[in-house]
Amino acid sequence: MKEKELLNTIKTVLNSSYIGDDCAYLEDLGIVITQDNLVEDVHFKRDFITSYQLGWKSAMVNISDICASGAEPKYLTVGLSLPQEINNNFVEEFYKGMKAAANGVEIVGGDITGADKIFVSVAAIGRTLGRKISSRKNAKVGQKIIVAGLHGSSSAGLRLLMNGQKEPEKFIKAHLMPSAQVEFSREIAENIKEDYAMMDTSDGLADALSQIAEAGGVNIEIDFSKIPYDKDLKVFEDYEDLILFGGEDYGLVAAVGDDIAKDFTAIGEVKKGSGVTVLYQNGLRKNFTKTDIENKIFNHF
Amino acid sequence: MKEKELLNTIKTVLNSSYIGDDCAYLEDLGIVITQDNLVEDVHFKRDFITSYQLGWKSAMVNISDICASGAEPKYLTVGLSLPQEINNNFVEEFYKGMKAAANGVEIVGGDITGADKIFVSVAAIGRTLGRKISSRKNAKVGQKIIVAGLHGSSSAGLRLLMNGQKEPEKFIKAHLMPSAQVEFSREIAENIKEDYAMMDTSDGLADALSQIAEAGGVNIEIDFSKIPYDKDLKVFEDYEDLILFGGEDYGLVAAVGDDIAKDFTAIGEVKKGSGVTVLYQNGLRKNFTKTDIENKIFNHF
Repeated sequence: MKEKELLNTIKTVLNSSYIGDDCAYLEDLGIVITQDNLVEDVHFKRDFITSYQLGWKSAMVNISDICASGAEPKYLTVGLSLPQEINNNFVEEFYKGMKAAANGVEIVGGDITGADKIFVSVAAIGRTLGRKISSRKNAKVGQKIIVAGLHGSSSAGLRLLMNGQKEPEKFIKAHLMPSAQVEFSREIAENIKEDYAMMDTSDGLADALSQIAEAGGVNIEIDFSKIPYDKDLKVFEDYEDLILFGGEDYGLVAAVGDDIAKDFTAIGEVKKGSGVTVLYQNGLRKNFTKTDIENKIFNHF
Repeated sequence: MKEKELLNTIKTVLNSSYIGDDCAYLEDLGIVITQDNLVEDVHFKRDFITSYQLGWKSAMVNISDICASGAEPKYLTVGLSLPQEINNNFVEEFYKGMKAAANGVEIVGGDITGADKIFVSVAAIGRTLGRKISSRKNAKVGQKIIVAGLHGSSSAGLRLLMNGQKEPEKFIKAHLMPSAQVEFSREIAENIKEDYAMMDTSDGLADALSQIAEAGGVNIEIDFSKIPYDKDLKVFEDYEDLILFGGEDYGLVAAVGDDIAKDFTAIGEVKKGSGVTVLYQNGLRKNFTKTDIENKIFNHF
């Protein structure tokens, strides 16, 4: 995966303690910050997504990153670069979608320029006051794995779009207009006492678990039957892979102590070792290394 | 100017008090934030700029925006989208250039993705602690206009590049590797008591003056002979236009009281009326409306 190589180069040049989590935690300012790019024909196609939905999704993926840190989403800025043929109505709908998704998180500025293709870059700021901030390296043996959101719906929706299908609409909506887990994040970050790991499932549930396992030097074992998903996914022959390896659901996954876990959907536990272990419904028990998961995502999606 | 129309649409949809200055001032968090996009073949050409210089410039234009607010530049994030053919060395040099320009401002995260062309979006955070924050609408009749930086060098450098010329190198360097006015900004923001207007000259000195005049409902009169510029610019027949209307010098211009102005280069004064008045060296006195200036920039550059 080329982007992972480049990330290593960046880490080496910057030699910064901030690089590693979805958000950078700027303790002196009491904020976290994150930034994500959405590029036409790489992350989305104009044929598949309306400008309103693109605005919505651009805001939501960044709000989701803030939620993964445990901070309170507060402000967004957006750099928008657009081809000449894009009209005023596109821009209006884009910002309406962004504002609707932001739902009180304020859009406070940014930039608008020309470009050959649509390019969106959103930066999001979260406030850490009264919240305990997560780090993916915080997972400890004995912690429970809890999740929020339905898994697999977004990648099912993407597949429907690619096949030119329009039903079930709920999966397409999950892909084009995801929702960040704002409340789950707040509940945990306001109440938890001990250090904890949390990530969003933007690159899939298994990837998030794998990143947490690697950063913490632990194994994560989950029980597939406990993962929340839409039962209609079963029309897809490979629905188990959609649930584990499909991206862009923007659910959250966290490794927390029992006292917090008891109020949420627990799907597994942090154990000694490495990688991710899945207990399937048929009794099969499968270990995935980081490379297994990366290959699975790369070959499957 | 299409982008100005789109900006009006955005302002209408968002109905936000934050849109208007180069930075959004988030008082509750004690920070300002800004974001700028740099797009290949719109803002730069790969033939003219090295990856190190592109990294440098991407950081500096955003640091300059922070300086325009009076805040202390603290953190940067960068969303970088790159074509397949870009190699690891490009990314390494880009980040080295960014880090050199940042000069202590920390690069704390961002995103790296694919794209057809190079797309850079940088967000910058400034800390407001101990600083008085500017707003372009703060200009008041009687205030002096002070400036920092040399004006016209960057647009002269761009012209040399477009003509395939390599000398004088200082102008090309001014275009490719500008410097933000960090100290000027700090001196003012730490010492000033009254409200003041400040902007960077990213779109040219006249444009900055015009924006301040319009936002404050005032006229700004300047004496051309007092503007700091490199005397070698006189080899260009239209050097007066380069100085007034050429962009990307990333100087600063501010409207401040006499007590502050006395320590800096004053070039004019805030008066009743509207637009920008220039007293030329030959005794000519010329009034420019906002539209005059926009047309001049559009037709000339």
